[in-house]
Amino acid sequence: MKLFLVIFGRNRISPTCMHKYLLILLFVSCGTHAQKDSAFIRKIYDETLLRGKAHEDLRSLCKDVGARISGSAAAEMAVYWSEAKMKSYGFDKVYLQEIQVPHWERGTKENAYFKDDKGILHKVKVLALGGSIATEGAIEAEVVEFTSLDALKKATRSQVEGKIVFINQLMDAAQISTFRAYGACWPVRGLGAIEGSNLGAKAVVIRSLAMPIDDHPHTGSMYYVDSVAKIPAAALSTKDCELLSAQLKKGKCKFILEMNCQNFPDETSYNIIAEMTGTKFPNEIITFGGHIDSWDTGEGAHDDGAGVIHNLEALRVLKTLNYKPNHTLRLVFFMNEENGNMGGKTYATWTKAKGEKQIAAIESDRGGFSPRGFDVDGQDKHLDLLKSFAPLFAPYFVNQFEKGYGGVDIGPLKDEFDGIPLFGFAVDSQRYFDFHHAESDVFENVNKRELELGAASIGALIYLLDQKL
Amino acid sequence: MKLFLVIFGRNRISPTCMHKYLLILLFVSCGTHAQKDSAFIRKIYDETLLRGKAHEDLRSLCKDVGARISGSAAAEMAVYWSEAKMKSYGFDKVYLQEIQVPHWERGTKENAYFKDDKGILHKVKVLALGGSIATEGAIEAEVVEFTSLDALKKATRSQVEGKIVFINQLMDAAQISTFRAYGACWPVRGLGAIEGSNLGAKAVVIRSLAMPIDDHPHTGSMYYVDSVAKIPAAALSTKDCELLSAQLKKGKCKFILEMNCQNFPDETSYNIIAEMTGTKFPNEIITFGGHIDSWDTGEGAHDDGAGVIHNLEALRVLKTLNYKPNHTLRLVFFMNEENGNMGGKTYATWTKAKGEKQIAAIESDRGGFSPRGFDVDGQDKHLDLLKSFAPLFAPYFVNQFEKGYGGVDIGPLKDEFDGIPLFGFAVDSQRYFDFHHAESDVFENVNKRELELGAASIGALIYLLDQKL
Repeated sequence: MKLFLVIFGRNRISPTCMHKYLLILLFVSCGTHAQKDSAFIRKIYDETLLRGKAHEDLRSLCKDVGARISGSAAAEMAVYWSEAKMKSYGFDKVYLQEIQVPHWERGTKENAYFKDDKGILHKVKVLALGGSIATEGAIEAEVVEFTSLDALKKATRSQVEGKIVFINQLMDAAQISTFRAYGACWPVRGLGAIEGSNLGAKAVVIRSLAMPIDDHPHTGSMYYVDSVAKIPAAALSTKDCELLSAQLKKGKCKFILEMNCQNFPDETSYNIIAEMTGTKFPNEIITFGGHIDSWDTGEGAHDDGAGVIHNLEALRVLKTLNYKPNHTLRLVFFMNEENGNMGGKTYATWTKAKGEKQIAAIESDRGGFSPRGFDVDGQDKHLDLLKSFAPLFAPYFVNQFEKGYGGVDIGPLKDEFDGIPLFGFAVDSQRYFDFHHAESDVFENVNKRELELGAASIGALIYLLDQKL
Repeated sequence: MKLFLVIFGRNRISPTCMHKYLLILLFVSCGTHAQKDSAFIRKIYDETLLRGKAHEDLRSLCKDVGARISGSAAAEMAVYWSEAKMKSYGFDKVYLQEIQVPHWERGTKENAYFKDDKGILHKVKVLALGGSIATEGAIEAEVVEFTSLDALKKATRSQVEGKIVFINQLMDAAQISTFRAYGACWPVRGLGAIEGSNLGAKAVVIRSLAMPIDDHPHTGSMYYVDSVAKIPAAALSTKDCELLSAQLKKGKCKFILEMNCQNFPDETSYNIIAEMTGTKFPNEIITFGGHIDSWDTGEGAHDDGAGVIHNLEALRVLKTLNYKPNHTLRLVFFMNEENGNMGGKTYATWTKAKGEKQIAAIESDRGGFSPRGFDVDGQDKHLDLLKSFAPLFAPYFVNQFEKGYGGVDIGPLKDEFDGIPLFGFAVDSQRYFDFHHAESDVFENVNKRELELGAASIGALIYLLDQKL
């Protein structure tokens, strides 16, 4: 449309033929723009698929750094890894932003057993939930099963007091979006210890928030409130939940839990930031990124190694193609999404305080799977804009554009910048909860092409937003 | 529309208000139909996702039967497995259809090496291409590399004669549809031996038709013509192709190939067929299926275990939901898609000869990955019909409906039934060529939910075609 306005402004056109001119110019202008956009997007995909660095960069992050929970030495290594990697790509600016993060450690002991009706001990796979207190030696108590958090809430004190609560709530496999199924189960993990303690439980163990029946417990954040006594909380593998539940159908059962996880004082850490400076509007920022921290099991490959690599590769590709952005393109590797979101919160207040204008933000935090589209948390006009990109994305099978969620890291920008659109990168989610927060979230479980297509899709969206906003 | 016509036929309506009636009735009718369809499709997905048999059935096919090349004992086992499985689900009819199939065996010896410039032997991973003759002892010859089949075609006899030809043609990673990239490389495997022999080569080794750089050679069918001498042909792993090519840049290199694969006389085998008889039009058939044979490496999990299981599960679910089809729903496990398509060809002539009316056919043969949509090989009206289903499929993220390819097995129906629409089930293809025709095509590489969503999507299409055709 910019081309059209320029031509129209410079020419004198009689009213009678203006309509005709308008139509022709609009057509020519749109056609030219669309062709230019289409050709540039093809270049983005080609560079990413043919000469891409995404797969090797993810391998290095997963294997050379590994799991990187906030406050850990590995997270510190991840900061240096990220800074060095960004510098190696020669972006206009690379810098760290200091933040304070929580520091929780799993410790060295993590054991759990149930005793069957014959008194035989069965070892079960367990992971403390992030933030849980330790058991201070082993806790042994009768275990009581609830099939949902709601069922636990409705229980009486006599059913629960002095026992270990087992919340065996299944993720709903009938949900096509596994994120919806996860969302419905999230309170089990987040609030289970509070609800159990409310009724006098000694500890809470939950069914891992995972779809498959397998051997991997899945950790994740949990919460305490000051008004309720803190009790230990852990996740069991879905397979062990099936076994324990079957045993409980035969009769009473004891559970033994030992964990020496520990909370420490906050640590200093960093968001890692890289920029290509805008040539027309340097103070107008398009922010995009993922989170560099992960849980302390597996390698944080899908969550969210893939997300940071998607965005890193997108900026690398734009630079490699010698793209000169209108607005400043800012890549942020956010620290501490998993248990505090201090990276996202600090970034939002910092950019506001600097007087910068944030015009859009993009986040990738749903794994390195095949792209499906983008969600937008914004106004109708933002959805319309996104949908206007559909023909440009169609050759890449990226075709779902809906109102929805942006992401945890970029979420706080909404509080600081009225009306900013937040774009969440939507991928095929069917395998995500096989790996999420578990030892199986390793590099080998990320497919090279799926990862690369994600990076290219984000690169294309950054380009289009920079052109059209 | 049927409801509307019935109501309209039974009522006397004055011409003045007919238009109004028509609109209201059309609206009510379409609304009612859409709601009924939508509700039934939801039931199909629920049954498949919550109480599905697809994953366990595929496990059994892969682990209890395994790889099952036409003419082998394993293929015979697969026939009995299939018949027993179909009978266990209580379909109206289950029967075998006799066919003749080729019989080729890999044999016991399959060795390949290259000798570097220092005379050191490097063992490489190799698989004979299906149908290849043996080497009759080891062949040792200088190896000459071509980066494409076209480059080989342009070579002179003196470049090739007496040598082993190495066709190192890459699949084009820039293609978003991996099937397109495969299609472009297919002649390397299919015709490489003919082109090499034309110029006097002793044998041909090709780069596996695979995207990733890994250790798995990928086999597949190859052809000879009577006018050209037969020479042995084999596929190398992509990793070994990189090593060999690097070595050849340093200087001349010998290659040693030994294979005792063998062609035998044709064998008797079977398509395996199950039906639910049509309640209104029993002689009008909707055929759907995949192929039960596989290559003789891996377990034929994606190719095409997933395809037969998709269709088996679809019919099981329709029966479980007590669906009474209008037309006869016929599930076919086709034998011998991989190297002859005798199942598909025999089926098409047989059903024509019986005087049956085939009204549509569906095939799944692109792996057990997340559904994306359906291709239709048919007329514009068939694409329009398919696209009219889009709102019903949208909740399941099934949204690509295009003109395209149906499938190898159902292809011959086109020659016998004028204007029959053939529907090819389109899935996310990014990982397919990691596993295709290789030892990595095993059950563990099929995701349970992705498989189940495929089965439900096919069930939904069968239902909709049965209702709307």
